[in-house]
Amino acid sequence: MKKLINDPADVVAEALDGLTRTAAPVARLDGSVTAIRADVGELRAAGRVALVSGGGAGHEPAHAGYVGAGMLTAAVSGEVFTSPSVDAVLDAIRAAATPGGVLLIVKNYTGDRLNFGLAAELARAEGIETATVVVGDDVAVAASNGAGRRGLAGTVLVHKAAGAAAAAGRPLADVAAVAQRVADAVGTMGVALSACTVPAAGQPGFLLDGDEVEWGLGIHGEPGIERGAILPVRETVARLAQAILTDRGAGAGARVVAMVNGLGATPPMELSIMAGAVARDLAERGITVERLWAGNFLTALDMAGASLTLLPVDDELLALLDAPAAAPAWPAVASRPGPVTIPAPDAERAPTGELAVTDPLRRALEAVAETLISARDELTELDREVGDGDLGISLARGAAAILAEGPAYPGADGPGAVLRAASATVRRSVGGTSGPLYAVLLLRAAACLPGPTGAPADWAAAFRAGVAGVREIGDAAVGDRTMVDALQPAADAFAGSLAAGHDWRFALDAAVEAARVGADATAQVRARLGRSSYLGDRVLGRPDPGAVAVARWLGAVASTLRS
Amino acid sequence: MKKLINDPADVVAEALDGLTRTAAPVARLDGSVTAIRADVGELRAAGRVALVSGGGAGHEPAHAGYVGAGMLTAAVSGEVFTSPSVDAVLDAIRAAATPGGVLLIVKNYTGDRLNFGLAAELARAEGIETATVVVGDDVAVAASNGAGRRGLAGTVLVHKAAGAAAAAGRPLADVAAVAQRVADAVGTMGVALSACTVPAAGQPGFLLDGDEVEWGLGIHGEPGIERGAILPVRETVARLAQAILTDRGAGAGARVVAMVNGLGATPPMELSIMAGAVARDLAERGITVERLWAGNFLTALDMAGASLTLLPVDDELLALLDAPAAAPAWPAVASRPGPVTIPAPDAERAPTGELAVTDPLRRALEAVAETLISARDELTELDREVGDGDLGISLARGAAAILAEGPAYPGADGPGAVLRAASATVRRSVGGTSGPLYAVLLLRAAACLPGPTGAPADWAAAFRAGVAGVREIGDAAVGDRTMVDALQPAADAFAGSLAAGHDWRFALDAAVEAARVGADATAQVRARLGRSSYLGDRVLGRPDPGAVAVARWLGAVASTLRS
Repeated sequence: MKKLINDPADVVAEALDGLTRTAAPVARLDGSVTAIRADVGELRAAGRVALVSGGGAGHEPAHAGYVGAGMLTAAVSGEVFTSPSVDAVLDAIRAAATPGGVLLIVKNYTGDRLNFGLAAELARAEGIETATVVVGDDVAVAASNGAGRRGLAGTVLVHKAAGAAAAAGRPLADVAAVAQRVADAVGTMGVALSACTVPAAGQPGFLLDGDEVEWGLGIHGEPGIERGAILPVRETVARLAQAILTDRGAGAGARVVAMVNGLGATPPMELSIMAGAVARDLAERGITVERLWAGNFLTALDMAGASLTLLPVDDELLALLDAPAAAPAWPAVASRPGPVTIPAPDAERAPTGELAVTDPLRRALEAVAETLISARDELTELDREVGDGDLGISLARGAAAILAEGPAYPGADGPGAVLRAASATVRRSVGGTSGPLYAVLLLRAAACLPGPTGAPADWAAAFRAGVAGVREIGDAAVGDRTMVDALQPAADAFAGSLAAGHDWRFALDAAVEAARVGADATAQVRARLGRSSYLGDRVLGRPDPGAVAVARWLGAVASTLRS
Repeated sequence: MKKLINDPADVVAEALDGLTRTAAPVARLDGSVTAIRADVGELRAAGRVALVSGGGAGHEPAHAGYVGAGMLTAAVSGEVFTSPSVDAVLDAIRAAATPGGVLLIVKNYTGDRLNFGLAAELARAEGIETATVVVGDDVAVAASNGAGRRGLAGTVLVHKAAGAAAAAGRPLADVAAVAQRVADAVGTMGVALSACTVPAAGQPGFLLDGDEVEWGLGIHGEPGIERGAILPVRETVARLAQAILTDRGAGAGARVVAMVNGLGATPPMELSIMAGAVARDLAERGITVERLWAGNFLTALDMAGASLTLLPVDDELLALLDAPAAAPAWPAVASRPGPVTIPAPDAERAPTGELAVTDPLRRALEAVAETLISARDELTELDREVGDGDLGISLARGAAAILAEGPAYPGADGPGAVLRAASATVRRSVGGTSGPLYAVLLLRAAACLPGPTGAPADWAAAFRAGVAGVREIGDAAVGDRTMVDALQPAADAFAGSLAAGHDWRFALDAAVEAARVGADATAQVRARLGRSSYLGDRVLGRPDPGAVAVARWLGAVASTLRS
């Protein structure tokens, strides 16, 4: 049994202790495992009807998580899956009681009925006015079944609606009537994807093989009504919704609220997906979903799976469900009927223009592209030895896109505009890490070339700015065995040579040579970044393919522009 | 793979759709899987700094669940465990951008750095002011590791603090400084109890045998730094806290906030237990826990386990963390440093008095007790055949308690007070269903006997009231094969005989006979309630042991009082 617990005997008390430390509204009733509102003293003075619920533990956040303004006054807990004792319930009633009386909300299990029932009896004998509402929302078992229907997650909606009525100052009979109305109307059915493991037992109550799921399960590891293969969630939801709606006699034209309840080990992603499926399913049936909640509301320890709860509502019930509540497990934000879509800003305009065949920049771009296409297999082979093998293909794909889109680059707007357009081409066509890095190289360079033409010194500044961009977003320095090992010395050599008064052709050759030396040198260092970093010494003797690619295309630029 | 999903290819879009339907503050940016504040138009007009975060999916509720007032403006999502594209990030920035600028909060993964980095670059080129803060809070890997530290659940605290600064109208540089301050200070480490299953892969990234756990795991199913046997949660917490505090250089005297983060399949009960363990561990180290949160904040799909995040704070940071926020995944209620205990109301006073040996009521009670003790084995045997076998022992235990406590019952206060005292004895000493049922029988009867003595008609009314109480809290009618099948005819016979003018002795004999007949008749019916109801026809031919017990003790009462 792998659980984040200490002693199985202490789980209930320790869970309550943790809850009271994370949620200011919830205090612990001294000497018990009853959760009670920290401001219960003020409530007593105000005389509002108190709400007390509870039952066996193992259903967290139920019920202690619903203690707070607008919901429960106190939640009394038994051991895991065991009803609390009469005396524990009675102590909770006494502590919560106000002159307005106490409403007990009890899930329909024999133990809970007896223990809460007798506690209410004793409280009445002490002069505390009480009323009791029993919740049996499980539509998986026939209502005619002797023991009645089990109380499931629908109980939380009884807490919410009755809590709002109590907070509004309504008398006990009214609050009980609201609770009874919800209890009479609400229906729940679930599907388990796994069993649950009781801490003290250490073994699951039932086992599910392979892709089996359990329909209509209880929340104590008891088997459900049927077993079957897992279905797509839309079919799961359709089946659960059909069962509940048939039982409740609700259909097209109905207004309902819906709750998707995780059974303990269901990830938030799946609960959201199921919530979406519920909304679509009910809409297809012509039912209006007024509110929709998803989360862990009433669990079965570490069971995977979820239940669906549907409650037909009118404006009055809706107002009670919408009323503010400050209990830790009630959703922080309001739900709303349908999704809202915000229009996206206008998409970037594709570059429009023409880059003349004779423009040196077009010739250089095409030379780069053709070189990268020819080098594809060589780079792929090299990358396969030291990386994930996709570099040759990625760069060739970008090169092909440049060849296709290049003629429409806005040459008349100057080299900056062309490089910006090329950056967009690369960004859209090249995945992995190379795409963003080359895109930023081109984009930063473009920013240094605002005019209609670029002087060699502008190009040198652009080259260095582009390389700085690559270093920055790639978080790479020289010596890290990346493309920067070829780019940085090349950019420095080009700028340095020009600064020393050399012709741009000479400076470009110096850059090509520096890139080649830098790329070769990567064969002597281990990788610090990227996938190669996992290979340690095994990369030694082989140059970094990203740096080799730089040396190749820079060489192509030089020979094209020189000719 | 058992998941509540439809097509693995659709999980990200469907999860966002579900979220937007359950959380009114969150809308969807058209044509994308970016979550954006539904009121983004008003935000733009107000010119507040916008916060954009995101990354690969599979970490729900991160990051879309943090979209809302006081936290993120937009959250852009990639596929599961895959960075979003540059264009997706850029669209989110454009949609969220205000004149106040945009802060990007990025978890430190290569893909996210590149794609968010380039998008920021492009946004700046469009005139959108941006700043970027990278979060790497994972203390399990050395800070000197080449790729830097991974971004984990600490990112959520960056969202919160920076979001509060932005909501307060502070300029971009300030908001970025707050985010950077949290990113620099926060530390996280986790322990996995299971691997996670990527929907599109259908297989877990790593496997854990038996009771093994994985320490210092990543949130993408990548292995952690060490494997070991599961520990009690207090030791797990001690180890995680020690690693974080050592790394962050925090110790006794420090003030921190702490977050216990479920990794996706961890039940709420365990997260609460771990939160309590964190509070105790840090208190023992002399560290003040200013705030403590527990929940699913940043998950790894369906991984079981949790991470601990610690952030040293001062008053300024605390105020930012406490500022109101209306994002669906941020806790609804405030946390507070320590637990609050509400004093329990005074315990019930034990009855004090004396019940004379000669009092007929004492003689009757003792006769009942002695009879039930003698009938223990017979009832046990009968119950073993048709129930769970505990009836004989339960009733004998109550009988022994009556014999022990009976002499101190307040005889001078009348029979009602004595029966009330007996009810308390039974309630405290008898478990299962018999205890509450006999306790309510005695309690309801007591209410009909307020005077110093009881006339036969009072006793008849008391008997019937007691039986009505049993029927009510037990939800049982005559014919359900329970103790009611003996009690109800007996009470009716007693009252009917008295009403017909018979002597009480005659009436009592009639009651005993009715109980016997009623008990015998249960052998002819199937059970509707309780454990016997699962046995169907197998109970036929054997009487209900609860009804038999009634006939026995009523017979003892009659023979004692007659003598």
